[in-house]
Amino acid sequence: MSSSSSFEQPQVITCKAAVAWRAGEPLVIEEVEVSPPQPLEIRIKVVCTSLCRSDLSAWESQSLLPRIFGHEAAGIVESIGEGVTEFEKGDHVLAVFTGECGSCRHCISGKSNMCQVLGMERKGLMHSDQKTRFSIKGKPVYHYCAVSSFSEYTVVHSGCAVKVDPTAPLNKICLLSCGVAAGLGAAWNVADVQKGSSVVIFGLGTVGLSVAQGAKLRGAAQIIGVDINPAKAEQANTFGVTDFVDSNNHSEPIPQVIKRMTGGGADFAFECVGDTEVATTALQSCSDGWGVTVTLGVPKVKPEVSAHYGLFLSGKSLKGTLFGGWKPKSDIPSLIEKYMNKEIMIDELVTHNLAFDDINEAFELMREGKCLRCVLHMSKRGSSGEHFLWLHQSIEQAWRKNRRRGKP
Amino acid sequence: MSSSSSFEQPQVITCKAAVAWRAGEPLVIEEVEVSPPQPLEIRIKVVCTSLCRSDLSAWESQSLLPRIFGHEAAGIVESIGEGVTEFEKGDHVLAVFTGECGSCRHCISGKSNMCQVLGMERKGLMHSDQKTRFSIKGKPVYHYCAVSSFSEYTVVHSGCAVKVDPTAPLNKICLLSCGVAAGLGAAWNVADVQKGSSVVIFGLGTVGLSVAQGAKLRGAAQIIGVDINPAKAEQANTFGVTDFVDSNNHSEPIPQVIKRMTGGGADFAFECVGDTEVATTALQSCSDGWGVTVTLGVPKVKPEVSAHYGLFLSGKSLKGTLFGGWKPKSDIPSLIEKYMNKEIMIDELVTHNLAFDDINEAFELMREGKCLRCVLHMSKRGSSGEHFLWLHQSIEQAWRKNRRRGKP
Repeated sequence: MSSSSSFEQPQVITCKAAVAWRAGEPLVIEEVEVSPPQPLEIRIKVVCTSLCRSDLSAWESQSLLPRIFGHEAAGIVESIGEGVTEFEKGDHVLAVFTGECGSCRHCISGKSNMCQVLGMERKGLMHSDQKTRFSIKGKPVYHYCAVSSFSEYTVVHSGCAVKVDPTAPLNKICLLSCGVAAGLGAAWNVADVQKGSSVVIFGLGTVGLSVAQGAKLRGAAQIIGVDINPAKAEQANTFGVTDFVDSNNHSEPIPQVIKRMTGGGADFAFECVGDTEVATTALQSCSDGWGVTVTLGVPKVKPEVSAHYGLFLSGKSLKGTLFGGWKPKSDIPSLIEKYMNKEIMIDELVTHNLAFDDINEAFELMREGKCLRCVLHMSKRGSSGEHFLWLHQSIEQAWRKNRRRGKP
Repeated sequence: MSSSSSFEQPQVITCKAAVAWRAGEPLVIEEVEVSPPQPLEIRIKVVCTSLCRSDLSAWESQSLLPRIFGHEAAGIVESIGEGVTEFEKGDHVLAVFTGECGSCRHCISGKSNMCQVLGMERKGLMHSDQKTRFSIKGKPVYHYCAVSSFSEYTVVHSGCAVKVDPTAPLNKICLLSCGVAAGLGAAWNVADVQKGSSVVIFGLGTVGLSVAQGAKLRGAAQIIGVDINPAKAEQANTFGVTDFVDSNNHSEPIPQVIKRMTGGGADFAFECVGDTEVATTALQSCSDGWGVTVTLGVPKVKPEVSAHYGLFLSGKSLKGTLFGGWKPKSDIPSLIEKYMNKEIMIDELVTHNLAFDDINEAFELMREGKCLRCVLHMSKRGSSGEHFLWLHQSIEQAWRKNRRRGKP
């Protein structure tokens, strides 16, 4: 790369980030240095980021430390690296954990979002040079999932960001960075749920409820939600779940319950818990002959899915998906449009809003199963209470103002 | 059922059958009594029956004894039970291990061949009354897969038989009762192999070669056959295999070999060995994003298919099939027509012809991996050598004669 480029050279930014120093121990808000974006990268001022269960699982088990988690994120481009033409300063963006280079065999395939160049990053380093853009007093801090949004500023590859409608509320659409998109895509792209069909969903978190929403919009006749927490029944109903099964409340095996309810097995089954045993249960619960099971969760314990061969011989199939099969740049703007047109629900999934400084509270809420999505609002000072309220209101106001100006 | 029916009441037939008395021990040609067909059943004079690996596996491990194996079978209707209107004496038929009742939710679904009424029978008894139609001196002998064709006469449910073109050679089309149909259907109905795609097939027996044939007819660009027996390479080529991989001849893991050969993984992978470990290998060998693995084999050892969840999350899917997804009555006649029109090959899979009396030799040939399909010809006297030669010639002559009379 030439160093004689004419574009304005960004400088290191020092800002606040929530750093994980030890697995499972509270994050620490630290001053971190964020390097300028390197060629084809952009630096984003994170506005809102929501906590996803994968962050929690990784935080509980990670050895790649210190690290900055967070991968559901919306923000504003602060600066761009050399060669970036798609973005400019001020663009509203979502950062995404799986990129779209646009030219590998997967990106051009029309049937896969498993980009071979900017696919899911697991080493905590940037795709381009296998280094980090974060440091604390010169000591590198690892990235997470190519996003690391638990920081006021972050650097991502421009292939891992999606330019979004600036009138869309960043505190809501950040959920499309992962959970909501994953669920909708599982129902639409992967399972291809049909009108009149029966669906069973294991795990009614944000992903599971988004599957339910997707199935409902496809016209599924029966949407059974299975969860260990009966408190989820009412909310599930909002997202289209027609029958709630409390899995702790049945003496017979759940596949038998589902087969009885569906007259032989569900047409479509979804594992949204992150438990390979549940994936097997889902497969057992779907119909012989045509039943499709989709597994979405990232298991914490046993990584092997195991199932009797007879389940397959009887005509069932098992699929999986990362990010719902969506190609981020190609597809996510249309999901934002659907949200803006009130065709899909996101607001109802945001059960908590917290200031960034209170991020450990968000982790606790999720660990205790007390939230769906907790959105963290990045404020300069990052204090809870009054300041956060101000921040939240100002975002809402800006959004309403923009919306009046923008498209209906 | 009324006993005052006007139709001619068939009598017990005493004939020869190859009876398995102990698991893995040579079959014994015995005089067995074959009951008249009960309501909705037919009694078939078996003309030709071929040995499938499932017979061998079941014989090696069965506890349901004494039993008459055999499930790839062609014959002629000898008598019909009350209520049978679809067949009459003299009809040429294939007997099939999975039936088609025509009215259950699977039969009417248009997307499943897992008939709920006449599905695969595992208890060695007739579907209708859970009894046997075979006995030796009054002692019941179990059926196998609702067919039991290692007998000069057998009784099957009329829903487990397919009326066939009487000009079709029974000594060839018997292979459509299972192996050939399973392989073609896996490629066409289950995987839906596309033109220009890459395919890998694990196990080049009759089923695997039929998958290859199916893939070739669909226009697959690359068909890789994997087997432990290098002697299969040449024959595999006849069925469309473009690249042969001797799995014992590679130090690196086979999925890596396949990924290298296909530039990232095969579009379609087929497990035709009957080994759940191989199913995992197949899944690992297919492409991220869209790779489809179909498992067809019935494993002898470990019944659980086990695979890392990441294989699914990266967009692969695992399917299975029984009888290639074909509904026997609805679909098999069209396969026979394709054979008669020389659109599909069967003859090349028949590596051995033996007299029924020599059935133990057929079992040895298959056990030693020395045959693809060995067709057993049922003769009244059933002796090897001269008599068999006569029998075989007379069948061939009759077939040619019929063919001249019949359609081209």
